[in-house]
Amino acid sequence: SNGTLTPHPLDQLEEIARGQGLDITDRKFAEYMDSIDPIGHLREDFCYPKMKDLPKTDLSLVNPDEDCVYFCGNSLGLCPKKFKEYMLMEVDKWMKTGVEGHTSGDLPWAWFDELFCEDMGKIVGAKKEEIAIMNGLTVNLHLQLISFYRPTPTRYKILIESKAFPSDHYAIESQIELHGYDPKTAMIQIKPREGEQLIRGEDILAKIEEEGDSIAVVCLSGTQYYTGQVFDIPTITKAGHSKGCYVGWDLAHSAGNVELHLNEWEVDFACWCTYKYLNSGAGCLAGFFLHEKHKDNTFPKLRGWWGHKLDTRFKMDNEWAPCVGALQYRISNGPGFLGPSIKASLEVFKKTSMKELRAKSLLLTAYLEVLIQRKYGGRGKVTNGRENGTQNGGEDWKQVHVDIITPSDPAQRGAQLSLSFSVPIQHVFEELTKRGVVCDERKPNVIRMAPAPLYCSFVDAYRGLEYLDQSIQAAAKIN
Amino acid sequence: SNGTLTPHPLDQLEEIARGQGLDITDRKFAEYMDSIDPIGHLREDFCYPKMKDLPKTDLSLVNPDEDCVYFCGNSLGLCPKKFKEYMLMEVDKWMKTGVEGHTSGDLPWAWFDELFCEDMGKIVGAKKEEIAIMNGLTVNLHLQLISFYRPTPTRYKILIESKAFPSDHYAIESQIELHGYDPKTAMIQIKPREGEQLIRGEDILAKIEEEGDSIAVVCLSGTQYYTGQVFDIPTITKAGHSKGCYVGWDLAHSAGNVELHLNEWEVDFACWCTYKYLNSGAGCLAGFFLHEKHKDNTFPKLRGWWGHKLDTRFKMDNEWAPCVGALQYRISNGPGFLGPSIKASLEVFKKTSMKELRAKSLLLTAYLEVLIQRKYGGRGKVTNGRENGTQNGGEDWKQVHVDIITPSDPAQRGAQLSLSFSVPIQHVFEELTKRGVVCDERKPNVIRMAPAPLYCSFVDAYRGLEYLDQSIQAAAKIN
Ligand SMILES: Cc1ncc(COP(=O)(O)O)c(C=O)c1O
Ligand SMILES: Cc1ncc(COP(=O)(O)O)c(C=O)c1O
Repeated sequence: SNGTLTPHPLDQLEEIARGQGLDITDRKFAEYMDSIDPIGHLREDFCYPKMKDLPKTDLSLVNPDEDCVYFCGNSLGLCPKKFKEYMLMEVDKWMKTGVEGHTSGDLPWAWFDELFCEDMGKIVGAKKEEIAIMNGLTVNLHLQLISFYRPTPTRYKILIESKAFPSDHYAIESQIELHGYDPKTAMIQIKPREGEQLIRGEDILAKIEEEGDSIAVVCLSGTQYYTGQVFDIPTITKAGHSKGCYVGWDLAHSAGNVELHLNEWEVDFACWCTYKYLNSGAGCLAGFFLHEKHKDNTFPKLRGWWGHKLDTRFKMDNEWAPCVGALQYRISNGPGFLGPSIKASLEVFKKTSMKELRAKSLLLTAYLEVLIQRKYGGRGKVTNGRENGTQNGGEDWKQVHVDIITPSDPAQRGAQLSLSFSVPIQHVFEELTKRGVVCDERKPNVIRMAPAPLYCSFVDAYRGLEYLDQSIQAAAKIN
Repeated sequence: SNGTLTPHPLDQLEEIARGQGLDITDRKFAEYMDSIDPIGHLREDFCYPKMKDLPKTDLSLVNPDEDCVYFCGNSLGLCPKKFKEYMLMEVDKWMKTGVEGHTSGDLPWAWFDELFCEDMGKIVGAKKEEIAIMNGLTVNLHLQLISFYRPTPTRYKILIESKAFPSDHYAIESQIELHGYDPKTAMIQIKPREGEQLIRGEDILAKIEEEGDSIAVVCLSGTQYYTGQVFDIPTITKAGHSKGCYVGWDLAHSAGNVELHLNEWEVDFACWCTYKYLNSGAGCLAGFFLHEKHKDNTFPKLRGWWGHKLDTRFKMDNEWAPCVGALQYRISNGPGFLGPSIKASLEVFKKTSMKELRAKSLLLTAYLEVLIQRKYGGRGKVTNGRENGTQNGGEDWKQVHVDIITPSDPAQRGAQLSLSFSVPIQHVFEELTKRGVVCDERKPNVIRMAPAPLYCSFVDAYRGLEYLDQSIQAAAKIN
């Protein structure tokens, strides 16, 4: 299913370049793209780190006063500028009024999380009642599996990716063991085909068709953390449902990155963290989605008083009366000091839409890709699954290879490109770090670069590629 | 088991008063007590709210510039002064360096929680490896019950208090249901005797003796949130063990309040919040204790990548290799912005010891009690379980009664006194609020006052009682 988007973002880019009489690899083209970016101004809502402030930059190699190149929004998003102000309001409230802060101020600690459900819902295509914001992602996944994974001797399996994010893998493994089943037989791990790096959507569907009757829960990531591959959530969800499975999604790398319509797609449950594309700070509260069709479910749950509806919560009579919808899954009272970053972040999202954000992201990621391909052209065919548009590889391509593992089909990826190299990755990564290109290395073998469309510009991508090139050359010499 | 402490703190107070030629009800006595308080200066480490800053104070009734009377440290502790500075350091780190903050600065977000385990351990009498700091209290309780509650047809019960804190009640009820048992038969709720308000320790021991063979887990609170009663953790733990039960404790109202020796007492597991006597802010990360004897247990668990040992955590090979001890129960990566308050709080605790804090607390609570008794003498005999030392009730005692529900035995209580009144409690509470006495009302029928020894003075107790008296008089008039 390559090339499902029309016009292909690369064709769009080329058309714009032609219209401007510019070469796509020219810095002027990046500058032009920034000048017509309808959400380019949102970068001003973030604290974009400077070269000199990053602890490991080599200031002899870069201009200390320039912005770094931040390609790490898929790991930890940048700080929204309003965060400090909102945080200081809460700090001040505690300092001045102690316990009164529970019910006063902009973010009353007793219900601050509920204030975010509607806006968070818009980001993932959900109704307010379908959303809770609490705990960490994996904790939420456990709470959901406690409800949705109720194995029976004939339906006891969970379908996951063979290289699922470790936390998901461990969570699912432990849930299977909790119910006395054996992960060896109960955990189906869907793999790429021999010699391939991406999982084919058709293979997921075939597996569901084949084993669906014994699968209790299909639990995949919306966007694969390592390869950046985006799975087809509505199709897979429908396939799971047709076999009587529940279908839940880890949206850590999807929320705020690609368009989601969880309600419309009838997804049973989903969870995501808010520290990546949602820019709410390290380990901040995670999202929790429960489809409205399950709002009054009587599934097993791990209960706590914060899931009790508010009007009788403090009657202290120990008669369980749950909130409706996702909020009934809350357990403990929420950490008020995690509210300010979520507030600051959601306010930025409210200035745009996921549709607009995704439109920019498609162009920006395609732009980064084409720069890599022009420089290291002729590479990445097999794993990338897309023929290069050009054969005129850069002068260095004979020495160094760069593979883009991420699908070339824009519909099958978000902001991230996962790169592997013919030179030692550790060296490339260190050289990038010296040059203030913030990205991350994931074992065993990729560097992930994610130009997050909320605050990354086309010039960032251009500069990033220049530094990548320098880094590869330097790494090749170390080698 | 009344009067187990010698000398009784009330006798100590009276001796000091005699030595100074002061009446114990005289403000001068409170001032003298403050002058000899070895930890009185620690009040300066906290932001003590002013009358004028509290949203509901009636400034015609009090001096706006005076400190309020903060008796609510059992609900939400006061803000340590260093908090703001430490928070701003983390905010700044995110603003300037993005993802680099995970591994840099004073509180690297990737492991800030581990930095606190040793100091937290000292507060509860545990070794560093026995402690984790994560999630909310009730979430932690669930994680522990997943491991320790493994019901069998012959041993499937959980012993709790009949009026356990609602969240504990719901958590335990839901755990029982998760395993397919019926809370009606599997949840044993130990009650006070007919006509009494406190649970007798001997009744708990008798119940364990009687039903212990079918009890899987004894799960009580160390300090009862409503009555303020402190249970005898070592004796009950031993009794449970002798019957083959696991014994775990909710220490929400015990941690930072009374002396604990969890390791020595062989407690299996315990959890507590840090927002009460530990002053770490609303809904902040909770404590988790796992006795070292269980450090390598193979009990069922809800796993996540943060419980994986650090050296291979990022190998991403999905081969589970847990941390040793409590940390293996971590699931999600921790919220870095909850670190600063814990740091600021623990630094204050390091300037004293639980022994010293408890010594002051015994005197301070006894002082508040004796003021109440002198004013409303002759009341509270039945529920308080201690004969009043004096019969000269205040002039108003014929009109208004105040009952102290909390045990009079200092060994059986911490900083909190739970009061009930012969006038409508809601009116008393509102009048107290107008006068800047911060305490809380708990349904159905008490006002809880907790002079936390870290920042409350004897003069606070004196002033609190004056305001209480005014409030009762005003409430009696409304009535
Ligand atoms: C005894 C007790 N247990 C549990 C809790 C609350 O738990 P959580 O922090 O999980 O909301 C409280 C809070 O007041 C409490 O007093
Ligand atoms: C796909 C995916 N799932 C889960 C997590 C982490 O979960 P948690 O927030 O529970 O630590 C991550 C974090 O990087 C992730 O990428």
